[in-house]
Amino acid sequence: MDILTSQVIIEWFKNLQNKICSALEHLDGLGKFHQDKWTRPEGGGGRTRIIQGEHIEKGGVNFSAVHGDMPEVVAKELGLPANEFLATGVSIVLHPSSPMVPIIHMNVRYFETKHGHWWFGGGIDLTPHIIYEDDTQFFHQGLKDACDTFYDGAYQEYKERADNYFYIPHRSETRGVGGIFFDRINSDIGHDKSQCWKFVQAVGSSFLPLYSEIFNRRYTMPHDANHKQWQLVRRGRYVEFNLVYDKGTKFGLQTNGRIESILMSLPPQVEYHYNYAAQREYEVNTQNLLKKDIDWVNYR
Amino acid sequence: MDILTSQVIIEWFKNLQNKICSALEHLDGLGKFHQDKWTRPEGGGGRTRIIQGEHIEKGGVNFSAVHGDMPEVVAKELGLPANEFLATGVSIVLHPSSPMVPIIHMNVRYFETKHGHWWFGGGIDLTPHIIYEDDTQFFHQGLKDACDTFYDGAYQEYKERADNYFYIPHRSETRGVGGIFFDRINSDIGHDKSQCWKFVQAVGSSFLPLYSEIFNRRYTMPHDANHKQWQLVRRGRYVEFNLVYDKGTKFGLQTNGRIESILMSLPPQVEYHYNYAAQREYEVNTQNLLKKDIDWVNYR
Repeated sequence: MDILTSQVIIEWFKNLQNKICSALEHLDGLGKFHQDKWTRPEGGGGRTRIIQGEHIEKGGVNFSAVHGDMPEVVAKELGLPANEFLATGVSIVLHPSSPMVPIIHMNVRYFETKHGHWWFGGGIDLTPHIIYEDDTQFFHQGLKDACDTFYDGAYQEYKERADNYFYIPHRSETRGVGGIFFDRINSDIGHDKSQCWKFVQAVGSSFLPLYSEIFNRRYTMPHDANHKQWQLVRRGRYVEFNLVYDKGTKFGLQTNGRIESILMSLPPQVEYHYNYAAQREYEVNTQNLLKKDIDWVNYR
Repeated sequence: MDILTSQVIIEWFKNLQNKICSALEHLDGLGKFHQDKWTRPEGGGGRTRIIQGEHIEKGGVNFSAVHGDMPEVVAKELGLPANEFLATGVSIVLHPSSPMVPIIHMNVRYFETKHGHWWFGGGIDLTPHIIYEDDTQFFHQGLKDACDTFYDGAYQEYKERADNYFYIPHRSETRGVGGIFFDRINSDIGHDKSQCWKFVQAVGSSFLPLYSEIFNRRYTMPHDANHKQWQLVRRGRYVEFNLVYDKGTKFGLQTNGRIESILMSLPPQVEYHYNYAAQREYEVNTQNLLKKDIDWVNYR
């Protein structure tokens, strides 16, 4: 019988970071990841890896495993008594150079306390500057396949959570075309630890095949200055979401996390125009698809 | 005897907006303000004016006067019973093209309720991309002169509030070189309404002479691609402050304010670099001066 220790999970996450970084360097062709190892005074640390490449203009693939006494603000947020904890995970944001290639975000994480609480969380979501329906359908189908290994209805549930989470109320639009988002999955939902872990591994493992395929479909597509400007405007919305609403970002800033690792998610270059209105067909089409509750798997 | 009605205040604010817009068009030389008039379904409205000029890359000079039933979230925030209210003011943010010219922000505002509560608020603060000590001293001396017409110690008090308010905790740095910031000034602090109003007028009237002087000192200074990049990085910090901490921005987003008028404060172009470290002398010097509690009036 396998024993799933936190050490096994940590090693798998480290290995996932390694595999993804190698594959992304290959995809980019020129760029290499730069690693910053950091330690947390209270316990643990991480490996922040940043690429500034040819096709990936700015990307971060971060691993961390932090432990120690739980800060009170964390205990309060989680609704747990203060306690020793371990939190580990892999977190990715890629900003491609080409406006035709989407921004992607992925996160898989594990949390446990000394008192025996544990759960997994994570998700993947896609933020195209210009939405291609077939890419989006392909992306969602891939996520559904990963979810279907877990339980019936998991995709629908986690897809709805992503729609609700990656939403910018003041713009009345979603950040992108969504994906899946889940948190605190553990035996309370009727699946044992090894089943939850298999699902999280399936999600982590789905990142490369899904993003590589979409990247390869789009990165050589020609584009002009208008596409580029639209990309910079869309990136502005990404910043608005991350700084105003994203819980992970807020939490990191409040708990004195490593700022540069948290804010690596911000795009390399951004523009903010006053009252920018979608005009070109691809702009209007994209704007119209930035909505919750689109059934992408069965689209058309 | 003068009777200070809200109509008098509103007219003075409108006129201030007009004067400032004319003078800024003159300063810019080429750019003209574009006006969007808007109305608020629940009562009142505003005139948002935006310039995208030669030397002012993106600037907003907004007037608004809104009234009606107080939204519950506002009543709660203000610690008042829900009530009819009037809020009016002028709000300015200018992002100059040249990295040698500072960003400036000014706001003067008046608030009253039907039940007889009233107060003024506002402030001016300067965010140089590159700090020039003599400009900063000149700027703070001008603000002290405006405060000295009100009461002894007003400058010190409002300067400290600006230091504390325009602060980015996660960067351990101030947004810029501060200025003055005041809120809810009314007869509770021992000055009658006409004295408070004279002070607010002095602050509003100080904007043009102070900014014009600094603008004229700097806008013809030569600069290179490094200065420009540093400007784009500093602008990124401006976005971080406005989206993560600025109460006016948060409040506007929560209360369904006119988004484009609120977010006109965001810079036209921004860069986010991973782990950008100040290196050049002007960068290091600027970084070292982004601190609270510098006695700028008596500097050197």
